[in-house]
Amino acid sequence: MTDVENRRVILNARPVGVPGPEFFNIETAPVPTVGEGEFLVRNAFLSVDPAMRGWVNDAPNYSPPVPVGDVMRAIAVGDIVQSRHPDYAAGERVCGTFGWQHFAISDGSNVMRKLLPEEESMSLALGVLGLNGLTAYFGLLDVCSPKYGETLVVSTAAGAVGSCVGQIGKIKGCRTVGIAGGPVKVRHCLEEFGYDDAIDYKHCADIAVELAKLCPDGIDMYFDNTCGPISDAVFENLALHARIVVCGTASIQEWDPLPVGPRVHRQLLVARARMGGFLIHDYKDRIPEAIEDLSQWVGTGSIKAREHILEGIDSAPGAIRMLYRGENTGKLVIRLD
Amino acid sequence: MTDVENRRVILNARPVGVPGPEFFNIETAPVPTVGEGEFLVRNAFLSVDPAMRGWVNDAPNYSPPVPVGDVMRAIAVGDIVQSRHPDYAAGERVCGTFGWQHFAISDGSNVMRKLLPEEESMSLALGVLGLNGLTAYFGLLDVCSPKYGETLVVSTAAGAVGSCVGQIGKIKGCRTVGIAGGPVKVRHCLEEFGYDDAIDYKHCADIAVELAKLCPDGIDMYFDNTCGPISDAVFENLALHARIVVCGTASIQEWDPLPVGPRVHRQLLVARARMGGFLIHDYKDRIPEAIEDLSQWVGTGSIKAREHILEGIDSAPGAIRMLYRGENTGKLVIRLD
Repeated sequence: MTDVENRRVILNARPVGVPGPEFFNIETAPVPTVGEGEFLVRNAFLSVDPAMRGWVNDAPNYSPPVPVGDVMRAIAVGDIVQSRHPDYAAGERVCGTFGWQHFAISDGSNVMRKLLPEEESMSLALGVLGLNGLTAYFGLLDVCSPKYGETLVVSTAAGAVGSCVGQIGKIKGCRTVGIAGGPVKVRHCLEEFGYDDAIDYKHCADIAVELAKLCPDGIDMYFDNTCGPISDAVFENLALHARIVVCGTASIQEWDPLPVGPRVHRQLLVARARMGGFLIHDYKDRIPEAIEDLSQWVGTGSIKAREHILEGIDSAPGAIRMLYRGENTGKLVIRLD
Repeated sequence: MTDVENRRVILNARPVGVPGPEFFNIETAPVPTVGEGEFLVRNAFLSVDPAMRGWVNDAPNYSPPVPVGDVMRAIAVGDIVQSRHPDYAAGERVCGTFGWQHFAISDGSNVMRKLLPEEESMSLALGVLGLNGLTAYFGLLDVCSPKYGETLVVSTAAGAVGSCVGQIGKIKGCRTVGIAGGPVKVRHCLEEFGYDDAIDYKHCADIAVELAKLCPDGIDMYFDNTCGPISDAVFENLALHARIVVCGTASIQEWDPLPVGPRVHRQLLVARARMGGFLIHDYKDRIPEAIEDLSQWVGTGSIKAREHILEGIDSAPGAIRMLYRGENTGKLVIRLD
C-alpha cells in the first residue's frame, strides 16, 4: 500500500448475530482530503471488540447500526499526520472511533482521548488503557462499589475487560473468582491475572455447584460479560445485597426474539440484590481520572495486560467471529503496516 | 369464644405454591400465660399478605418457613391486655408479627411499631400505615428515586401496596400508569388512586403495545409486584436509566424449578437500567420517618386506602388464595370479634 491509498473494511450486508468474514469487503480508496476544522489520522492499531456485533445488527442498541456500504465502525489508535483543527496537531497520538481503515478524517467528535507523551505503547490505548480498562474500572468501581474482603466473580475472566476487572478487584482487597473457557485461559487467570480461583466452564460438570464450593459465603459482586448459563449459575449463589453489573452478553447469539432463561426476580428479591446495565459511554467525562489510576497500576505491575495481535488489515473481517469463538488469548488488536 | 380461649389457625401440611384452606386447621387453646419480660396482645385485626405464600413454602426465602403444626405467621394489630414487660403497658396498641390467632404472647422482638394515641383506625396499621405503606414508601422513594415528571408504572396497581405506590408517585409529581386485573380495579385506579392511566391486563390484547402508547417516552420506573408477562411487557418499554424495584412476584405460582421467561440482560444493558430486589425488613430503623409522612398524606387525603374486611378467624384459611386470585378489592384484613 502506498501513502496515498486508504485500504478499508466495508460492511457489505446486514448480519444477524455474530458477523463472519463474508459480511465484509476490503476496498482501496484514496486517502481523504483534510477540510477546515479536521485532521487526518494514520491508524497504527485497530481494535476488535465484542460491542461490534451489536453495531452491525439491526436491533435496538445504544448506537445506530453501521450502514451497509460504510467503513466498519471500530476503535483505533494512530498518529495525526495532518491537521487543520485548532485543538489537534500533527505528531499527536489519538485514540477514537476511526474505523477499520488505514486513514481516517476526524473533526474531533469521535476522539476518545489523546495519548500522553509518556505512553510508550500505542496498542494498550485500545485495551487496558482504553475502552476495556475504562469499562472494567467504572463497571466494577462505580456500579458494584467493591468492599474489602468481598467476593467478586468475573465471566470471560481472561478477556480484555474481565482480566482487568479481576485485577482491580484484587487491588481493592476482594477475593476474585474467574470463569473462563479452557485450561489455557484458566492458567492465565491464575498465573497472570491473580485470581484466587478460576473455573473452566467448558470442563465443569456444574458451574453453580463449583461456585458454591469456591464462594461459601455467596457472591457479593458479579461482573457479567456473558449472560446465559454462566450467569444463571452465578445467580444461584448470590450473597445478601449482591451487585451484578451487566456489561456484555457474549454467550447469547441473537436477541430477536428474546431468548428465554430462568427468571431472576425471585433471586434478586431474596438476596435484595441489584442488577444494572452498564455502558462506558455514560462515563466520557470521567475518563482522565480512570486513565490516571489505570496507568499507575499498569506501571507498577498491579495490572497485567495480555495482547493478541493480528497482522494487517486483511485479518480484520474474520476477527469478530474469532473473538466470539474465544480463539484469542488476550486483547485482540490488528497491527497495520 | 370466651376470654380464656385462644382460637388460632395452625399450618397442618407443607403446601407447594399458594396455600388453600385445606392446609390450615383452626384449633382452640388456652390463652397463654404472661411470663416475666412478656406481654399479652388481644388481636383486633389480622393481616393477609402476599408474602405469606413464601412463609409456608419450603424454598429459599428471607425467613425460615413456618413449621407444620405452628400457628400461621401473620401481621396483626391489637391491644395489650396484660404486661410484665418494662417497655409495654396494658392499654397500648401494637402492630407486629402476632400470628393468625386471637391472643399472642410477645417479648417485644416481633413488634413492628406501637400505634400513636391519635391513630383512630387500627386496621390501617396493617395496610397503608403498616407493612404495605412502608413497602410502597421505601420501595419507591429509596430504590427508584422518583424525579418530577418521570413516568411510573405499577403492577397490582389497585392492591394494598400498589395503590399506595401510585399515590406517592403522584405526590412526587410523576405520571402514573397502573396495571390491574378487571374493570373494577381499573376504575379504582383511575377514580380513587389518581392514576393518570390504567391498563386492565385481563382484557388487553398486548400489554407491551398498550404501554408503548401510554408511555411514549418510555418507562422511567417500574414497581414490580407480579413478575411474569406483565413485567415482560414493561421491560420492552424501558426508558434510559430506568429503575425497576422487584417487590413481589404474585404471578408466579412456583419457584422450584425456576420458571423461564425472556432474559432481561440486554434490555437492562441497552437502557442502562437498574433492577433491584426490595424487602421492607431492611428498613426497620427508618419506620418512624415513613409513618410520619404516610400519616400526613392519609390525613390530608393525598393517599386514599381501600380495605376489604373479612369477618372472623374462620375466614383466615381461605384468605391467601383469595388474595392470589385477586378476589379482594383493597387491603385484605380479618376482623376478630
